[in-house]
Amino acid sequence: MTSKAIPRVVIVGAGFGGLNAARALAKGLVQITVIDRKNHHTFQPLLYQVATAGLSPGEIAAPIRSILRTHKNIEVLMAEVTGFDLDRHTVETPEADIPYDYLVVAAGARHAYFGHDDWEPYAPGLKTIEDALEIRRRVLLAFELAERQAAAGETAVPLNFVVVGAGPTGVELAGTLAEICRHALAHEFRSIDPSRTHILLIEGGPRVLPAYAEDLSRSAQEQLNHLGVEVRTSTTVTQIEPGAVHAGNARLPATVVLWAAGVAASPLGKSLGVPVDRAGRVLVQPDLSVPGHPEVFVIGDLAALKDEHGKMLPGIAPVAIQQGRFVAKVIREELDSRTGSTSGAPSFSRSLREAGDFDARPVFHYWDKGSLATIGRAAAVAEFGRIHISGFIAWLAWLFVHILFLIGFRNRLLVFIQWAWSYVTYERGARLITGSTYLPGWTADHHGSAVAKEPTPQEIHTGPAK
Amino acid sequence: MTSKAIPRVVIVGAGFGGLNAARALAKGLVQITVIDRKNHHTFQPLLYQVATAGLSPGEIAAPIRSILRTHKNIEVLMAEVTGFDLDRHTVETPEADIPYDYLVVAAGARHAYFGHDDWEPYAPGLKTIEDALEIRRRVLLAFELAERQAAAGETAVPLNFVVVGAGPTGVELAGTLAEICRHALAHEFRSIDPSRTHILLIEGGPRVLPAYAEDLSRSAQEQLNHLGVEVRTSTTVTQIEPGAVHAGNARLPATVVLWAAGVAASPLGKSLGVPVDRAGRVLVQPDLSVPGHPEVFVIGDLAALKDEHGKMLPGIAPVAIQQGRFVAKVIREELDSRTGSTSGAPSFSRSLREAGDFDARPVFHYWDKGSLATIGRAAAVAEFGRIHISGFIAWLAWLFVHILFLIGFRNRLLVFIQWAWSYVTYERGARLITGSTYLPGWTADHHGSAVAKEPTPQEIHTGPAK
Repeated sequence: MTSKAIPRVVIVGAGFGGLNAARALAKGLVQITVIDRKNHHTFQPLLYQVATAGLSPGEIAAPIRSILRTHKNIEVLMAEVTGFDLDRHTVETPEADIPYDYLVVAAGARHAYFGHDDWEPYAPGLKTIEDALEIRRRVLLAFELAERQAAAGETAVPLNFVVVGAGPTGVELAGTLAEICRHALAHEFRSIDPSRTHILLIEGGPRVLPAYAEDLSRSAQEQLNHLGVEVRTSTTVTQIEPGAVHAGNARLPATVVLWAAGVAASPLGKSLGVPVDRAGRVLVQPDLSVPGHPEVFVIGDLAALKDEHGKMLPGIAPVAIQQGRFVAKVIREELDSRTGSTSGAPSFSRSLREAGDFDARPVFHYWDKGSLATIGRAAAVAEFGRIHISGFIAWLAWLFVHILFLIGFRNRLLVFIQWAWSYVTYERGARLITGSTYLPGWTADHHGSAVAKEPTPQEIHTGPAK
Repeated sequence: MTSKAIPRVVIVGAGFGGLNAARALAKGLVQITVIDRKNHHTFQPLLYQVATAGLSPGEIAAPIRSILRTHKNIEVLMAEVTGFDLDRHTVETPEADIPYDYLVVAAGARHAYFGHDDWEPYAPGLKTIEDALEIRRRVLLAFELAERQAAAGETAVPLNFVVVGAGPTGVELAGTLAEICRHALAHEFRSIDPSRTHILLIEGGPRVLPAYAEDLSRSAQEQLNHLGVEVRTSTTVTQIEPGAVHAGNARLPATVVLWAAGVAASPLGKSLGVPVDRAGRVLVQPDLSVPGHPEVFVIGDLAALKDEHGKMLPGIAPVAIQQGRFVAKVIREELDSRTGSTSGAPSFSRSLREAGDFDARPVFHYWDKGSLATIGRAAAVAEFGRIHISGFIAWLAWLFVHILFLIGFRNRLLVFIQWAWSYVTYERGARLITGSTYLPGWTADHHGSAVAKEPTPQEIHTGPAK
């Protein structure tokens, strides 16, 4: 479908990095192929809203091909990339090897259990729409099972939600869960009192939001406590089993456990055959290319790069966005300076490498516009250089920025309406339980019941709400 | 949780019938328990919009306990009813037997394969949110797989969507699919042309929309043809297998098959131990009670009742709504006339039966306000007695009625925005593929590929998109 005469750029992954690279490149005389295993881009900063039933998946995710529809030189493929051949300049997929002149790998990261993958069935993480639906299913189902149990005259098990990891995602989840229990669900049950649900946030490090300034960590913890979340810092989780989390020697009962304690880079980084760090991130050059392959770039959560102060760049959307645009600029400038020799894929790339003037390439600098983390309704922290803000103002800033950057006008409008509605009514718009009615660790008589269907292995691994 | 002194009404099923019965009863001095296996009410008339990616599940479904929240004498249980004991006046669930003075069974119907349940994995029906998500997944995935195949240089398989059954659901699905192919998806693929997708609607009977007047059936078929749908009437499906549908001796290739050919009543009807018809519907008395048990009512799709002209009442929302309200009225009047003897569950019901003045009960009459069936964008048919309308006006009427009756203001507003948006832009708002990337009948090399994961038995049976 694509002319061989036009230089071909393949972008793997349609997250913030990949999408921005594609858009910035599209203006040039270049054929772009965007490959993603999903058909949709997910606005990850708002995934926790889907997990907590505030938003529907369709409101924070949009089909990649519809986002890029207007760019006729962009082809979108929903496919699983199985590997790369950097010498033959091809990306390997089950159907075909896709040739490239330039390759941008933006495959991102996934939540990781640090050698405890057996914990995943009992403590789902939050990286995909499917993850969010599975978390939503478990949280809502816990209340339904408790109500049923109480209505049947049994002594209702007290509900304990445990969130492991107090980074931005863990803080968002814990704070929002606390709110739901107190407000959205408070008056809808007759036999249990959701507002008495115990929510525990466990952090291995000495403070919540470790990436933020200490005063903001303190403020965040205060805001969490105010919402009714118990925070335990400097506490390491040693074991997760159905119905319980072990921290040190203590066995903490846990109706639902959510995992927000860490991420690992996509295995595609390693498959490039270049050096990676302990988290599997590719150690990129200052121009974001990989050693020995100037035509191959790695960006976003998959890339490991230090800023000028020697501090590792965080795995957040702004970094990925800026890196995507930077790489697009580098590629376009090199293509413009070579408008003569655009003669077929491999030959083109060879001429590219032989030219070997990559020292002339600019160096990527991350412009830190500041960081925002939300905690709950009108609760957030914001760090803009020396300016530290907490509470309502920070939350407004967070709201503004996130609605502004949400992909697609339609979603922006809908999300805004949803939030306005939720803010006024405390209602949660998307409280559907779909899929299995099995909850790991629920008491035996429930497991045995007709509704509590044992999950298939596939369900256990990836969650049924898919 | 409930005082024994107050007469207790148990309602099984929170569809249109159950919800309306509960609401109408709530005003009385009575304790109501609503039991449903799902946590949400589904607005079934718009399910096809979820199946065709126009609306998100959260926009046509709302939590039952949130719909009924304001009624403090209503308790909602998410539980699977496993049976009834009409002599002991209890509803059986895995956790407990729930006593009742009055029982309203509104468990509805499910799509049925008339002895061909083995067809279900290859031809999903449309009755639940999960069904709709599974259909959406298959439809969207078909285009992605075809695009990938074509981009890989293989000759792309022509896409064939086959809808079996030309009742309202089949007509809606076929018409809307035709529109998506022509508009929403038309310009988003580079290697295939979605507008060339072949859509076939198969009907066993002599005409589409058999429940409507003949002139409207003709009009509906013309409108379908105009949208690009091939309609084959008087055609019986003899076999469904991966990738194909057999009609008579012809083997028709089918990338995706959707089943809209029939429904069967919930097995709960039979479990009442009273006479049922061939579709499993309970043959109710003129007052909607079951023979020998005046305190037990069956309403909605689960009830079989003829109107004054001897015509069986159709399984549509208006019938269920009117029956729910009728039953609530009957119960409240009997309770009011017995305000003395509200003394404990069984004794109360005995006194009720001994009183035996049920011949005094009113008879249910269905008030037919007319029927509406939508076919697609600005295409519909409407039958109000002798007044028959087609096309845009009928579609406006349909739109108005359905948005009006949609549960919950918030959803109404969101759905309206979605539709306004879709109508202006031809865009579809909820085009997410989640869950398995396996498509039954897709060519072998795709089955073998890393993305085309073989489904688990549970997936095959109920579809992964749950």
